[in-house]
Amino acid sequence: MSEGNRRLVLAERPSGMVGPDTVRLEEEPVPTLGPGEALVKVRYLSIDPTIRTWMDDVAGYLPPIALGEVVRGSGIGEVVASESARYRVGDLVFGMTGWQDYVLAGEGPGAMQALPAGIDPVTALNVFGVTGMTAYFGLLDVGRIVEGDTVVVSGAAGATGSTVGQIARIKGAGTVVGIAGTAEKCAWLVDELGFDVAVNYREEGLRGRLRQACPKGIDLFWDNVGGEILDTALGLLALRGRVVLCGAISAYNDRGAAPGLANTSNLIVKRGRMEGFIILDYADRFPEAQLAMAGWVAEGRVKHVEHLVVGLAQAPDALNLLFTGGNTGKVIVEI
Amino acid sequence: MSEGNRRLVLAERPSGMVGPDTVRLEEEPVPTLGPGEALVKVRYLSIDPTIRTWMDDVAGYLPPIALGEVVRGSGIGEVVASESARYRVGDLVFGMTGWQDYVLAGEGPGAMQALPAGIDPVTALNVFGVTGMTAYFGLLDVGRIVEGDTVVVSGAAGATGSTVGQIARIKGAGTVVGIAGTAEKCAWLVDELGFDVAVNYREEGLRGRLRQACPKGIDLFWDNVGGEILDTALGLLALRGRVVLCGAISAYNDRGAAPGLANTSNLIVKRGRMEGFIILDYADRFPEAQLAMAGWVAEGRVKHVEHLVVGLAQAPDALNLLFTGGNTGKVIVEI
Repeated sequence: MSEGNRRLVLAERPSGMVGPDTVRLEEEPVPTLGPGEALVKVRYLSIDPTIRTWMDDVAGYLPPIALGEVVRGSGIGEVVASESARYRVGDLVFGMTGWQDYVLAGEGPGAMQALPAGIDPVTALNVFGVTGMTAYFGLLDVGRIVEGDTVVVSGAAGATGSTVGQIARIKGAGTVVGIAGTAEKCAWLVDELGFDVAVNYREEGLRGRLRQACPKGIDLFWDNVGGEILDTALGLLALRGRVVLCGAISAYNDRGAAPGLANTSNLIVKRGRMEGFIILDYADRFPEAQLAMAGWVAEGRVKHVEHLVVGLAQAPDALNLLFTGGNTGKVIVEI
Repeated sequence: MSEGNRRLVLAERPSGMVGPDTVRLEEEPVPTLGPGEALVKVRYLSIDPTIRTWMDDVAGYLPPIALGEVVRGSGIGEVVASESARYRVGDLVFGMTGWQDYVLAGEGPGAMQALPAGIDPVTALNVFGVTGMTAYFGLLDVGRIVEGDTVVVSGAAGATGSTVGQIARIKGAGTVVGIAGTAEKCAWLVDELGFDVAVNYREEGLRGRLRQACPKGIDLFWDNVGGEILDTALGLLALRGRVVLCGAISAYNDRGAAPGLANTSNLIVKRGRMEGFIILDYADRFPEAQLAMAGWVAEGRVKHVEHLVVGLAQAPDALNLLFTGGNTGKVIVEI
């Protein structure tokens, strides 16, 4: 471990996957604590697809990461010094740490949140963190799941997708179908997580197999990937089908090159709704979801898997796992 | 006028625009009245884009028109004989007449509705008919218009679009922008109907001109056309923007050939919603909307224009007007 603060800053904007020149490791002195601040030693980084979108020079729901700026991302750290009553030395805290060893936590907007005692930080970053919150509010609030729904989830073996399928089951979905990219992931979804069917999109005939799994059509499609898979699902919507747009990872590394959606007019015929959301908008309501998730995790009804990658320098490769499908469950970098 | 019942039946499915061989004029005896029925002499046909979709062999919200079957469509006729207490000779009635001289009206589901006294049948087919109902419920229920909204309407010089823009104004829209295909239509929208801006999509730079007209983005986009115009609007959505999918006339004659939508992931960034609807689902609530429309028409706040085409045999050409943009306002065939 270095004496200073190692930081991964954005060196150039990637044109596809993050490459060896995308980020640059810099070292600066550990930041100096001011009044009302705490110094946080970062322990875990949450690796989320949205980080890739922030690397593009495109206005999104947050501004792009500037060149030379530390890569933005959430994580968990330990308070190692404090000049704020809000933070005690030894606390584990959650917030926007960035890809670096140390960060200053303040008291105003963007203040970090203490983890309740007894919560494992890795679990916290997954089911009680942005991932679990996204699954919960996306399914209940945006997707308005109702009992008996046929629910299909793309990117189902990822952190969010695997949680979505399990919450759908808890909420009384009639059929839960996962779409994933390997036979192993498909087996895991069915055998371990209780999905009814899992479909490997890398094999031929996705449309036919989805149709077979959903003979009455898709009531709720959870989309993590965009592109062809989304278009296929749009073509199979049931009456009043809902499409929850959570992400479009098929496009994040490949802007503009993907063929567009051809089946959106099925939203008219089926009186369908396609809606996007950003989980930050639900921050006020996280406690409600965290309570529900805590119960389901304790009962074993929501299983969670973390894919740990060790070392700050591995963060860019960890991010790429999300797009190559190299992960099962939540990707977390342990520093 | 012939002695029998002239009917336009679907002779072959069109592959693009309706052509000379799409329909065939047949003549059969005037249908024989049974108990509980009325014989209706058809006077006016409502010409709507959706009729073109029924000619394709594609399952939609209604089954396709079968080959040899009379072309489906709504219209207004006069009761000329009745064996039902529901219908009096001389009544004007609205319902699914089809493209023919005579139709039998029954008492069960699909019964025809008497027009209130004093309502001009041509006006009825427009603002009090499917067109007006579509504009009203699409804007209020699906689009959930709120005061101050920047509203953009494609196909704005058509029957539905022109009504949508005027209702948007009544409901307090901040800016109302119409998209149409000729300078004359654009001038009509602004000078006669009170749109703030009208943009000719056939000129270069649609995106730039829409952006200029909507500096804060589009809060509510009403889509009648689909394709590139829809995609452009998706890219300009404001936060929590709504896209009301009413129709996709750019694709009705051209299935599968159009480039797909590339900007749907902006629905995520902007927390947007894109939703389709079919006006038949709102039939129970038509009286509420008809009352509102009657008031607005009487006050001169909703102006309506009908494009009358004379002669049953002209119905196919009248339908094509909707796709070539040859009409301004509601296309109606007078038999």
